[in-house]
Amino acid sequence: MPTNEELRYPSPPPLASTTTTDDEAGWVWAQIKAEARRDAESEPALASYLYSTILSHSSLERSLAFHLGNKLCSSTLLSTLLYDLFLDTFASDPSLRVAAVADLRAARVRDPACVSFSHCLLNFKGFLACQAHRIAHKLWNQSRRPLALALHSRISDVFAIDIHPAAKIGKGILLDHATGVVIGETAVVGNNVSILHHVTLGGTGKASGDRHPKIGDGVLIGAGAIILGDVKIGEGAKIGAGSVVLIDVPPRTTTVGNPARLLGGKEKPTTHEECPGESMDHTSFISDYII
Amino acid sequence: MPTNEELRYPSPPPLASTTTTDDEAGWVWAQIKAEARRDAESEPALASYLYSTILSHSSLERSLAFHLGNKLCSSTLLSTLLYDLFLDTFASDPSLRVAAVADLRAARVRDPACVSFSHCLLNFKGFLACQAHRIAHKLWNQSRRPLALALHSRISDVFAIDIHPAAKIGKGILLDHATGVVIGETAVVGNNVSILHHVTLGGTGKASGDRHPKIGDGVLIGAGAIILGDVKIGEGAKIGAGSVVLIDVPPRTTTVGNPARLLGGKEKPTTHEECPGESMDHTSFISDYII
Amino acid sequence: MPTNEELRYPSPPPLASTTTTDDEAGWVWAQIKAEARRDAESEPALASYLYSTILSHSSLERSLAFHLGNKLCSSTLLSTLLYDLFLDTFASDPSLRVAAVADLRAARVRDPACVSFSHCLLNFKGFLACQAHRIAHKLWNQSRRPLALALHSRISDVFAIDIHPAAKIGKGILLDHATGVVIGETAVVGNNVSILHHVTLGGTGKASGDRHPKIGDGVLIGAGAIILGDVKIGEGAKIGAGSVVLIDVPPRTTTVGNPARLLGGKEKPTTHEECPGESMDHTSFISDYII
Amino acid sequence: MPTNEELRYPSPPPLASTTTTDDEAGWVWAQIKAEARRDAESEPALASYLYSTILSHSSLERSLAFHLGNKLCSSTLLSTLLYDLFLDTFASDPSLRVAAVADLRAARVRDPACVSFSHCLLNFKGFLACQAHRIAHKLWNQSRRPLALALHSRISDVFAIDIHPAAKIGKGILLDHATGVVIGETAVVGNNVSILHHVTLGGTGKASGDRHPKIGDGVLIGAGAIILGDVKIGEGAKIGAGSVVLIDVPPRTTTVGNPARLLGGKEKPTTHEECPGESMDHTSFISDYII
Amino acid sequence: MPTNEELRYPSPPPLASTTTTDDEAGWVWAQIKAEARRDAESEPALASYLYSTILSHSSLERSLAFHLGNKLCSSTLLSTLLYDLFLDTFASDPSLRVAAVADLRAARVRDPACVSFSHCLLNFKGFLACQAHRIAHKLWNQSRRPLALALHSRISDVFAIDIHPAAKIGKGILLDHATGVVIGETAVVGNNVSILHHVTLGGTGKASGDRHPKIGDGVLIGAGAIILGDVKIGEGAKIGAGSVVLIDVPPRTTTVGNPARLLGGKEKPTTHEECPGESMDHTSFISDYII
Amino acid sequence: MPTNEELRYPSPPPLASTTTTDDEAGWVWAQIKAEARRDAESEPALASYLYSTILSHSSLERSLAFHLGNKLCSSTLLSTLLYDLFLDTFASDPSLRVAAVADLRAARVRDPACVSFSHCLLNFKGFLACQAHRIAHKLWNQSRRPLALALHSRISDVFAIDIHPAAKIGKGILLDHATGVVIGETAVVGNNVSILHHVTLGGTGKASGDRHPKIGDGVLIGAGAIILGDVKIGEGAKIGAGSVVLIDVPPRTTTVGNPARLLGGKEKPTTHEECPGESMDHTSFISDYII
Repeated sequence: MPTNEELRYPSPPPLASTTTTDDEAGWVWAQIKAEARRDAESEPALASYLYSTILSHSSLERSLAFHLGNKLCSSTLLSTLLYDLFLDTFASDPSLRVAAVADLRAARVRDPACVSFSHCLLNFKGFLACQAHRIAHKLWNQSRRPLALALHSRISDVFAIDIHPAAKIGKGILLDHATGVVIGETAVVGNNVSILHHVTLGGTGKASGDRHPKIGDGVLIGAGAIILGDVKIGEGAKIGAGSVVLIDVPPRTTTVGNPARLLGGKEKPTTHEECPGESMDHTSFISDYII
Repeated sequence: MPTNEELRYPSPPPLASTTTTDDEAGWVWAQIKAEARRDAESEPALASYLYSTILSHSSLERSLAFHLGNKLCSSTLLSTLLYDLFLDTFASDPSLRVAAVADLRAARVRDPACVSFSHCLLNFKGFLACQAHRIAHKLWNQSRRPLALALHSRISDVFAIDIHPAAKIGKGILLDHATGVVIGETAVVGNNVSILHHVTLGGTGKASGDRHPKIGDGVLIGAGAIILGDVKIGEGAKIGAGSVVLIDVPPRTTTVGNPARLLGGKEKPTTHEECPGESMDHTSFISDYII
Repeated sequence: MPTNEELRYPSPPPLASTTTTDDEAGWVWAQIKAEARRDAESEPALASYLYSTILSHSSLERSLAFHLGNKLCSSTLLSTLLYDLFLDTFASDPSLRVAAVADLRAARVRDPACVSFSHCLLNFKGFLACQAHRIAHKLWNQSRRPLALALHSRISDVFAIDIHPAAKIGKGILLDHATGVVIGETAVVGNNVSILHHVTLGGTGKASGDRHPKIGDGVLIGAGAIILGDVKIGEGAKIGAGSVVLIDVPPRTTTVGNPARLLGGKEKPTTHEECPGESMDHTSFISDYII
Repeated sequence: MPTNEELRYPSPPPLASTTTTDDEAGWVWAQIKAEARRDAESEPALASYLYSTILSHSSLERSLAFHLGNKLCSSTLLSTLLYDLFLDTFASDPSLRVAAVADLRAARVRDPACVSFSHCLLNFKGFLACQAHRIAHKLWNQSRRPLALALHSRISDVFAIDIHPAAKIGKGILLDHATGVVIGETAVVGNNVSILHHVTLGGTGKASGDRHPKIGDGVLIGAGAIILGDVKIGEGAKIGAGSVVLIDVPPRTTTVGNPARLLGGKEKPTTHEECPGESMDHTSFISDYII
Repeated sequence: MPTNEELRYPSPPPLASTTTTDDEAGWVWAQIKAEARRDAESEPALASYLYSTILSHSSLERSLAFHLGNKLCSSTLLSTLLYDLFLDTFASDPSLRVAAVADLRAARVRDPACVSFSHCLLNFKGFLACQAHRIAHKLWNQSRRPLALALHSRISDVFAIDIHPAAKIGKGILLDHATGVVIGETAVVGNNVSILHHVTLGGTGKASGDRHPKIGDGVLIGAGAIILGDVKIGEGAKIGAGSVVLIDVPPRTTTVGNPARLLGGKEKPTTHEECPGESMDHTSFISDYII
Repeated sequence: MPTNEELRYPSPPPLASTTTTDDEAGWVWAQIKAEARRDAESEPALASYLYSTILSHSSLERSLAFHLGNKLCSSTLLSTLLYDLFLDTFASDPSLRVAAVADLRAARVRDPACVSFSHCLLNFKGFLACQAHRIAHKLWNQSRRPLALALHSRISDVFAIDIHPAAKIGKGILLDHATGVVIGETAVVGNNVSILHHVTLGGTGKASGDRHPKIGDGVLIGAGAIILGDVKIGEGAKIGAGSVVLIDVPPRTTTVGNPARLLGGKEKPTTHEECPGESMDHTSFISDYII
């Protein structure tokens, strides 16, 4: 039996400094089609799915609009209606494609279980929920709020991922496993952030207004972490799995436990250099951890 | 762009002391229809959904029966069968309507992200799961247990919310975000309780018998809290997000952490006056919390 | 009203030492049919579902293939395709039936809320996800990885349970409530293990390779527990609800809290005799637990 | 192998002169349930269908409403909406049930291929189209014309039977095979009429107004016959298969051919005594027919 | 009760000689929206359908693409795929819209049972099959024949109307009732032709090549007429219901019977002045017809 | 643009005298796969359909079972149930495959509009209805009559083709266009028969017993022909389109008209040599036909 390593698709090359986002998007879409073609040949039982979802489409946006339309539709919100809406929204805002490509790359580079771009596009509920959220967010900003909220509700039903359409989410986001993620109305998430499943960016229950966390670039938030209130998580910080965080966390520090404490202590917390949102190093602080 | 505040629908007026529940239900249903009509006019893409789910129905119960039937059906449990069952159950027990109205009001008043009654009716999985649970609970009490359990299973599949049909749930309940909530067979939840997502009211694993928590009126249970065993959470208590609670909690006290501890100490816990299940104040104990 | 106890179906007899697995499977399937027939008679509204899913089938495998095919299908992955795939896989590997029967027995014996085998077969998402995972795992081992991953994705969408198809899962498994369970690519779970909802057997974020927990036979993992990295949980250990575990846990010891600590201390942890994965005793350590 | 005769269900007894229509309806519904129960026992593959469509319902009307709702629904006209509409209409007009029972009896007595009442209820598109037409006709008369026409369109799509909702149809109607039947807006069909497939009761193309045939009681219209214009087909007349009729036909005479001629001649046409709409004697005039 | 006449929508005004087809299309689409809005208001049960199919769309083409996509889809040819295909085809060829508008006008003017444009758009299978055929014909001419034939097959399944995608069909076509119409591969149909149900424009069975009828402008073909072979039906001719025609028919003559004969005789057939395809006068030759 | 002739797939070679039916079936299935592969490559929009319906299957029978299951299913008769039933029936009776291959060859050779075997398999409702009938007929003969009749009903709804499951149908059958064909309970159809659309092989209305036509080998029955009663149509006879036949027709003669007459006269009818069921020569008698 071939090892998993042998079966992996080749990794994406590092982006050259001169690569434009259009080059990048074209390259990723070409990879996705090549992967899907290879898989369709080796697995006839899956070929129909790969053709309908990827190979029959002329662009990443059309493929995504089709796939999301079929995933999120219901007997009262038809796939044709959603497909139409998604196509229109992608066409009106090219930044949605750029963000999708950045998220695909994030999953491919950071998640060892992500064996190909097409694997992410087809199967990662975190990726799909994030793209659908971006459409809902755009509708929200156009004051088409009932539609944004209906979409929000479908994402929560279908993926068990609950991102309020008003929440601002950056690019290069990895929602890994993703079931149970809750991100509230006034939350802000920076670029290159990685968020594991069951993470809450929750409110404080006060009446409306700014009441949800602000997550800096490059942050890693471990599984089941709960961050509540209008607190600031500094860039490159690492929030340990299961932490409950109610106050600000300085940049490039690590927080663990419930109640949460800073590794190295509140006064002189230990800082790290790497960007955990990209390295996905969940447990290097393990020696420090009691049992 | 209008602010969210400007776009909010008017809040419900306080209930006059002489308001009957029938007045209240009629008033809420009229609001829902007015909201849906306004949204259908401003958003033609959503009008079909709003008409089929709300505007074509003559009562809140019929609208709910239709919406739940379409949400919970599957290829082997047809929407027509469920719709029929829900209509019959609503018709046979007017208290189900009263409870639904109380839950709608709870979401509208307590959740700043709930912009209208129709938003809750259409989109809040916690609200919908709660109403479907009440029907399953009624079937359970009529000894129609296989049907109650089939419904239970559909709610868990569709909403990722798992409330055993034997669990007794009060009125004025807010299940906020709601994904991952688990409420066991012998649990009891009082009135005006607010429960965030990922909350467990779990058993102790002992053989059958009374083995799940009893939650008093007005309790607030934060995200991810785990309460296990036949323990009593006193009325007005606040269970901090991520707490793991295995023993009784006195009324109007606050519990945080894993393992959980009472704010103010086991001997003389700090008490509060307000009803946190209604105020939804998650984090006023923040100054007390380490990091 | 009859009590729940009175309504329970008779418990399974203890397995005689001479019982073969074929006898056992035959006996369980006969029980399931008898239960379904009784329920169909008492509840005509459910009879159609019981006939299509159980009573019209000639074997447990066919019933499971049908039920999973209808649960996991989508508009782009047709039920007929999945049904075919599941039938073929069950036919090619009799150990899948043996494992399904062991899991049915585990739910029936350990979970007081499981009133019958058919209740588990029809309604327990943990049971269904586990059987679907076993099929995905077999496909994975046959290097049919795109298909295995597509199935993995459907299980995660439909049940909110995320078990990587490469993960090795034993027999006699109970995934209780099951919403939110995440089991990573290189995890190994022994026999007779019980895992509650929201449990994570997660990775360390290192590049690919062995990076997930190894769970011994007879372990009980409480709700919301998070176990990260290539750590070994000794056989018969008990992981308390909400624990966050990053290092090895000795056999027959109990771990609680976040950060986790061993009951009795790291040096001389208290050990227990029974097998908690089977007794499901979540809270006998309660006296030891602070609040 | 048993002969077809041996497998036939017992025929309905002749109606006693004192039988009320309620007795009759009760008797027929009891027969249908008994037949369905027998078939469900002998054919498990069909049991699910029989339970959902017949055995789970408490009355013929509910069964019909369910069956028609599922047959006539589409992705934009939901089964729940149609079911609701049909239930309401049946409840508001008991004559619909009486007519359905008369049609069931007509099929059972006149069509040798109709082996049971349940066979007709489940499988005869002519019977089902006729009942759906009666509902559309009622909506038409209540000036709910857009809804009546939408239903008309669904009947034409699903059954290839096109009966304008304004057409007046009597009781005891047999539409045998039924594909291709077209009955225009101002047509009137009496009681105890039998109409074979591909029959047209068409208009003359004149501007609106009375422009379709009037069919007397007890008429038999053979396959493919075309009757055009506001002509009167006298009671008990027999219209031969393939006839094209543009003028009145006297009672109890027989018309054949294209162009049509009266058997026995225009002046002194041969008359018959029996009621061909009930005897279904298509070809007793055969000796008279050239080849 | 209002009479049918009172309930009719206003008729379309005669086209002014200066009306462009774009004016005409705009006027018709505005009428359709106004009609649908009126109907949605008076019939809430239908409003959802009217919004999804008409009122949420910005153009006739989008409405048609949506409606046809939902009508013609199947579990293996998804509505999203068809919708996409139809939108693209309409966008690439404006003549398709012009033809659709001419057909709408034809139904509205010629068919007394057609009470409004929206009635035709929503409910007339002949109209819908004709528009879908035009798309299939375009695909055929682009050598996308497998797709054209798949569409052909869906039209035949759904509407029981079988028009080979190679057949050339003019504008201003009325397929009245339409069930059972068969039009073969090399048939040609002129403008302003009216064809009733069950009409066959069939081949001669010879090997491939030109083998189907050529129908002149303004022809009326009565119900059940069968025209076989590469014969020419002259413009303005009238083919009586049930005729079987195997040879050419001169312009503005009338053919009746099986075997068919020309009214007035083969040598000096009676001719008429009006255009029967537009007047829809089926039976003015009635005095001439024996019985 | 390539001509239709240029785009045609190569014709099947004549069967060598030594070809076994297994060779033939293998050859046809290989052709079908090659055609589908070619079409999938040239038309990505259709590839998903071609893979799911043909290319993912290992045999003609599995492809047919899948395609028919998806075509004939309804919300109350699931595709998985039908697929299972069809697979089992094909497996139990190899003659069903032989007959399917003979029918595919018949369509390919006789129908100039049939451009490939896969075109017939995918798109010809006459072919599909015939294969589904053979399964229903087998069930009928096994005394599984309720199931046979349910299938009969679905065929009639979906294809508008009504073949009683008791009717005996030979091999090498072409049902061309096929809409509206009605074949009664005691009809018998020989081998190599071609039947056009709207043909009726109907009963006489007498009480049960033998009452439908017996059609000899090689007969051709034109569109709209109506044959009634237990009459014998001799082998190689040709029944003209629109004929109404109530008495026996001698071998190799031709019948036309309504009322029908034999070409050449009742006493000495003209006979022909070729086999019209195979040559499909509908109109060589044209010179003989009046207008």
